[in-house]
Amino acid sequence: MKRYEQLAEDIARSIREGLLARGERLPSVREASAKRKVSPSTVFQAYYLLEARGLISARERSGYFVTGGVQGLPQLPEPEIAEEVRATEVDVSELVFEVLESTRARKVVPLGSAFPSPELFPMARLARTMAASVQAMDPWRSVEDISPGDVELRRQISLRYMIDGLRVPTDEIVITNGALEGLNLCLQAVTQPGDTVLIGSPTFYAALQSIERNGLKAVDVPCHPREGIDLAALARALKQHKPRACWLMTNFQNPLGSLMPDEKKKELVALLTRHDVPLIEDDVYGELYFGAKRPKPAKAFDSKGIVMHCSSFSKCLAPGYRVGWAAPGCYAKTVERLKLTTTLATSVPAQIALASYLQKGGYDRHLRSLRHTLQLQQLQFIEAIERHFPQGTRLTAPSGGYFLWVKLPDGVNSLELHRAALKAGISIAPGPIFSAQRGFADYVRINCGHPWDDGMEAAMATLGKLIRRLLRQATS
Amino acid sequence: MKRYEQLAEDIARSIREGLLARGERLPSVREASAKRKVSPSTVFQAYYLLEARGLISARERSGYFVTGGVQGLPQLPEPEIAEEVRATEVDVSELVFEVLESTRARKVVPLGSAFPSPELFPMARLARTMAASVQAMDPWRSVEDISPGDVELRRQISLRYMIDGLRVPTDEIVITNGALEGLNLCLQAVTQPGDTVLIGSPTFYAALQSIERNGLKAVDVPCHPREGIDLAALARALKQHKPRACWLMTNFQNPLGSLMPDEKKKELVALLTRHDVPLIEDDVYGELYFGAKRPKPAKAFDSKGIVMHCSSFSKCLAPGYRVGWAAPGCYAKTVERLKLTTTLATSVPAQIALASYLQKGGYDRHLRSLRHTLQLQQLQFIEAIERHFPQGTRLTAPSGGYFLWVKLPDGVNSLELHRAALKAGISIAPGPIFSAQRGFADYVRINCGHPWDDGMEAAMATLGKLIRRLLRQATS
Repeated sequence: MKRYEQLAEDIARSIREGLLARGERLPSVREASAKRKVSPSTVFQAYYLLEARGLISARERSGYFVTGGVQGLPQLPEPEIAEEVRATEVDVSELVFEVLESTRARKVVPLGSAFPSPELFPMARLARTMAASVQAMDPWRSVEDISPGDVELRRQISLRYMIDGLRVPTDEIVITNGALEGLNLCLQAVTQPGDTVLIGSPTFYAALQSIERNGLKAVDVPCHPREGIDLAALARALKQHKPRACWLMTNFQNPLGSLMPDEKKKELVALLTRHDVPLIEDDVYGELYFGAKRPKPAKAFDSKGIVMHCSSFSKCLAPGYRVGWAAPGCYAKTVERLKLTTTLATSVPAQIALASYLQKGGYDRHLRSLRHTLQLQQLQFIEAIERHFPQGTRLTAPSGGYFLWVKLPDGVNSLELHRAALKAGISIAPGPIFSAQRGFADYVRINCGHPWDDGMEAAMATLGKLIRRLLRQATS
Repeated sequence: MKRYEQLAEDIARSIREGLLARGERLPSVREASAKRKVSPSTVFQAYYLLEARGLISARERSGYFVTGGVQGLPQLPEPEIAEEVRATEVDVSELVFEVLESTRARKVVPLGSAFPSPELFPMARLARTMAASVQAMDPWRSVEDISPGDVELRRQISLRYMIDGLRVPTDEIVITNGALEGLNLCLQAVTQPGDTVLIGSPTFYAALQSIERNGLKAVDVPCHPREGIDLAALARALKQHKPRACWLMTNFQNPLGSLMPDEKKKELVALLTRHDVPLIEDDVYGELYFGAKRPKPAKAFDSKGIVMHCSSFSKCLAPGYRVGWAAPGCYAKTVERLKLTTTLATSVPAQIALASYLQKGGYDRHLRSLRHTLQLQQLQFIEAIERHFPQGTRLTAPSGGYFLWVKLPDGVNSLELHRAALKAGISIAPGPIFSAQRGFADYVRINCGHPWDDGMEAAMATLGKLIRRLLRQATS
């Protein structure tokens, strides 16, 4: 990272965390240069970059002012931490399907969707790469690339781990049909029906559905809006419930957007290692960071092979190709065999297309541009929430990903909001689909992975009106 | 079907079933024309076709002689039918993996492989179709083609059902990662851990692995080498075990090659309907028939929606693309939802490539050529078995698919043969991997889906020698 990028990142973090308020004037280039001990041109480049990202803007003859960040809204409340948590059977699938099916139609504004806009991805270049690689494909690859998967693709993934400072050998990697299959196989590799699994609360609904389908019990462990799972509560749950696995999203958790700091990840892995509980780590958003560098996965702190790291290309490069992977540590062989007996192989043309794309380079350039776009869109959505949602709305701006977890004013029920919004042609993801206990009734997840336009503005305005109406009903 | 094709088919069946013995002279064109009441040119075309398929050959001035068919070997024995069968826990996976992993290396002669040679498929044309369709793809398809799957592909599959006389609406079809995922999801849709499932014996090992993984019990029902499952034994097992599902391959069963006649399929469906037991019908080899027309699936006789029909393009068009489907009757919605929560979607580029290939036509032309090739290869392998295997070897020539289920002389253990053959660089599939009870110790499955050449001749000769050696050890 260049010096000006580091400076820009420091300022961006101050804005995200509310230390620099919207409207505030930034130090002049000369002041900043003196204070930071960098050249004026470095400061200028940093301001230029921040302006390009929509975080600051220049006013003629007055200098630079902060234009981004969450200013008008209070942060999300901290979770309540109970001394004891019960293990519960999960029965949330029906509700999740009802909500998800409503987000599929193209004419519905996809604020409830789990996918970012496919227009953010280099689909044309990917298609050209696939065209070339499939036409050059040796037919025998169709036999040889069955699980664990295409060796060049696994090598490319192993290389990316290495660049991030992790040693994950090629033969520990199993290519899967998206991260979802990897997560499911990892869960099956270490549990039997009736076992208990620790999850964060709120949590990604697919984890709940997987736990439900496999006849497991879930123990909810509270998560903090900025730093993720509460380790003290996790430690108590480990002692109390003797779980067989812990399933977490460490980076830009869905729906919270929380990012566990390195120290906390280290502690998490140490804690789980002591209890001999494998960690199923869902890291599909790790590449979508707004900060200076890719946050490490918990797997970076794992020396015993207990972390089963799962990720994919679906959210950052190739939606619909359904190529993901699991790096399941000491469970790699078990996961590979489960994959062989459930779906045998991942589509070979998609595997070789991605291997070829990664080989040729250009992935990191695409990622940089994607991150900037997502950061800009996040700001646009936050500003729209400030404009349109009533007082009492709270949110914490995540430092990556494309979700906003929004607390509605007390008394506003998000399932009612979901139904009302759908009638107005807008989908949202109501809080209860992210909870084994169907909690978070006054939360919604907003997808800001779609480009901002007048339609979005209108949709956010409508949502605001609906929330106000529900609030009036609740307080009258 | 043209008249000459019908005539050729009648003669081919007589050869396959041993009514026309190898070496026997066929009636002259004039005789056949008079007897069959067809024109001489029709007879000539039929003979020409049979010659092209390697079933007969012309000797100068002497007419046509039979050159194909199983002549030197007795048919497989009929199964022993016990009055009662026990339900058993399945624990065969480890053995299956051991055997399968040995077949993956390209230098091993793949007689034990489950795949036909990828060189039999129009990989180049498929690749061109994929190149064109993925480059023209609307990026939103990556969101809209998640399960149940691409609507045009499902429409094409529905059309093919219609041509075969079945009414399977588009919205009953769920696209899956190969048939294997479809079969697994169908099994999960109708069972809970601890339930009992009826299967044929011998059976495809993936069914055993799926039953094992899902914590189910299996009841083996004996299969006849030509006509498949024994319905009387099935009826008793239904009463005795109250199974939650029956999983069968009705057409060219793997490994037997048996083909259930229509009447038997009808009875099967009626029987299962009376007991309210869903049929998971694996029909991946149905298109690979050597006869006059595609054998009907059992689903053709199902009016209540209890048949969950699964198939794919992996064995007849596009190996490695991993595109299959399930038509799960009244369980369609359940299967669709299971698919959404396990792998979300099937690779979209593969889906749209196949949809486009099917739309453009040419699939049936490819299938005709593939069937002829497989039939010819079957003859070549049967002749090699006659040449090289010792007396006491038995087999029944299937009328489709690419497997030969071979009974070795009494006392020859196929697991020992597997180990000895592997040392000689040859894989085989030993009988016990096809049985929950690890039975069929003196059977092997030989894959004749690979082109015949000198290497195959040498491998079959080596196998013959190894069998003779094991036979000597057994009888000494």
